[in-house]
Amino acid sequence: MGMWLEGKPVADRVREAVKEEAARLKETHGAAPGLTAVLVGDNKSSQSYVRTKENACRALGLNGRSIHLPAETSMDELRKVIEGLNADETVDAILVQLPLPGHLRTNEVIGWIRPDKDVDGIHPASLGLLVQNQPGLRPCTPLGVLELIKAAGVAIEGRDVVIIGRSLIVGKPMAALVTNASGTVTICHSKTKDLAGAAARADILIAAMGQAAFVGRDFVKPGALVIDVGTSAVSDPEKIRTLFGDDPARARDLAEKGYTLVGDVDPRVIDKAAWLTPVPKGVGPLTIAMLMKNTLEAFKLRRNLA
Amino acid sequence: MGMWLEGKPVADRVREAVKEEAARLKETHGAAPGLTAVLVGDNKSSQSYVRTKENACRALGLNGRSIHLPAETSMDELRKVIEGLNADETVDAILVQLPLPGHLRTNEVIGWIRPDKDVDGIHPASLGLLVQNQPGLRPCTPLGVLELIKAAGVAIEGRDVVIIGRSLIVGKPMAALVTNASGTVTICHSKTKDLAGAAARADILIAAMGQAAFVGRDFVKPGALVIDVGTSAVSDPEKIRTLFGDDPARARDLAEKGYTLVGDVDPRVIDKAAWLTPVPKGVGPLTIAMLMKNTLEAFKLRRNLA
Repeated sequence: MGMWLEGKPVADRVREAVKEEAARLKETHGAAPGLTAVLVGDNKSSQSYVRTKENACRALGLNGRSIHLPAETSMDELRKVIEGLNADETVDAILVQLPLPGHLRTNEVIGWIRPDKDVDGIHPASLGLLVQNQPGLRPCTPLGVLELIKAAGVAIEGRDVVIIGRSLIVGKPMAALVTNASGTVTICHSKTKDLAGAAARADILIAAMGQAAFVGRDFVKPGALVIDVGTSAVSDPEKIRTLFGDDPARARDLAEKGYTLVGDVDPRVIDKAAWLTPVPKGVGPLTIAMLMKNTLEAFKLRRNLA
Repeated sequence: MGMWLEGKPVADRVREAVKEEAARLKETHGAAPGLTAVLVGDNKSSQSYVRTKENACRALGLNGRSIHLPAETSMDELRKVIEGLNADETVDAILVQLPLPGHLRTNEVIGWIRPDKDVDGIHPASLGLLVQNQPGLRPCTPLGVLELIKAAGVAIEGRDVVIIGRSLIVGKPMAALVTNASGTVTICHSKTKDLAGAAARADILIAAMGQAAFVGRDFVKPGALVIDVGTSAVSDPEKIRTLFGDDPARARDLAEKGYTLVGDVDPRVIDKAAWLTPVPKGVGPLTIAMLMKNTLEAFKLRRNLA
């Protein structure tokens, strides 16, 4: 029987360290690191995410603010806003909340951000610096996964690490981070011949493909560290009962919201793995904590303090 | 007994296609694609490489030229030259011949090149676009490996591909190209626990770590396609006899040059693999052919013709 590797205590430690360093930087440099989020349109979830990020900043003594633009903002108008933020000395970190309204070309927009202010680490130059193992900003979720691995006390060097999923914000940057940390990484995806067989060779298994409870016991080597990045809303009561038995929290979710959040990993894998991150409350809390840490990194990167 | 997968016929086909398209582009656009190589200092090998590239351009109807700067060129002076080439409408492709003299900071210099003229595909933004599977210029040697795999008639999708070596110009971009082509890629290196075991699972094995004849029979699955990117100069007559028996070409190399070029793969692996690229004359000829093709791509990329 393995242990649940909870995200909150790890995220709390990251936040605490950010808070302390932000205070120190404010003392020595007269300014706290600042994050500006750009939100276009009035998608409710996006509004809520942006608010959460602003609040997280403030709680740690960082300058968090956001710019709300109307849904009909043109590419030219958005470009001017981003160029203004690029040039603004008080802005260390710029985040464009995705998804953008359909008429805006996301890749082009991200490409306007100065790479050393690209706090989400998704500008091509940020990804390139990651591949090159050069200083730069890295995507937040993969950074959070690294913190969880560290918290479990597992060294990456020399380990077989299997990543399921090749998305731009998780799978691909995760693979580069693991290679840089001297793990032996295998990137699996929908076209992989024997997904379970490949996964079952992993000392560290990272599931990030977005399919509820897809990773079963046959995917897991006994004693593996399993990190579950996926989240899907599941509303089928039978499936929920199969995965979670009579867990009252899941029954409450279903009654109150009509669904419960399920990861890519079948929770019953806990009896075979050494550690498994829960969903929710596993990787999730780390993502915002790492965004805060990246804001600090951006402040230092631009001042050659890193 | 497998087949030797020679590079020259594949490279010849690539060159022929480049030549035809260059002629077409010249007709429709009034200009042929142009490559400018920048050489700093008087390293003899670098001078010879640059000359080879210029000649290769001319043979295909591309504008090949080079700029030779003295060894004591400063960062500022080099920057002005590169910025001039960035702005020059007649220059489609810029190549800075490496290695640079010790006082010049390579990463910074490469970062000055406009990514859409970065014909070696080593600017961080080029690598990032590769990871994102967005249009851009890719490093030449990994592109050449893809051509060889195609020439062998092997589809990458769904295959287990193992890459040994995580260099910036081969291993890492190769992994991204294979992932984009829907192969299941594993990146091995000096810290990998069981290198032979991992390699022996590969349908396609790409050796690029620079250790003469390191990859023996135990690394190879029967019927695998093996691509050998390494080249080392070996001068030990006993080692040469072990690897090549009484091959007169190798004896001649040793007598005339004092060494013979050996890949990362023990050539005797040919009796277990389905295909093996020889060294020399395997991957080598593809690298310059792909540089020519990239010059064409750069011309099209900047004009939105790609």
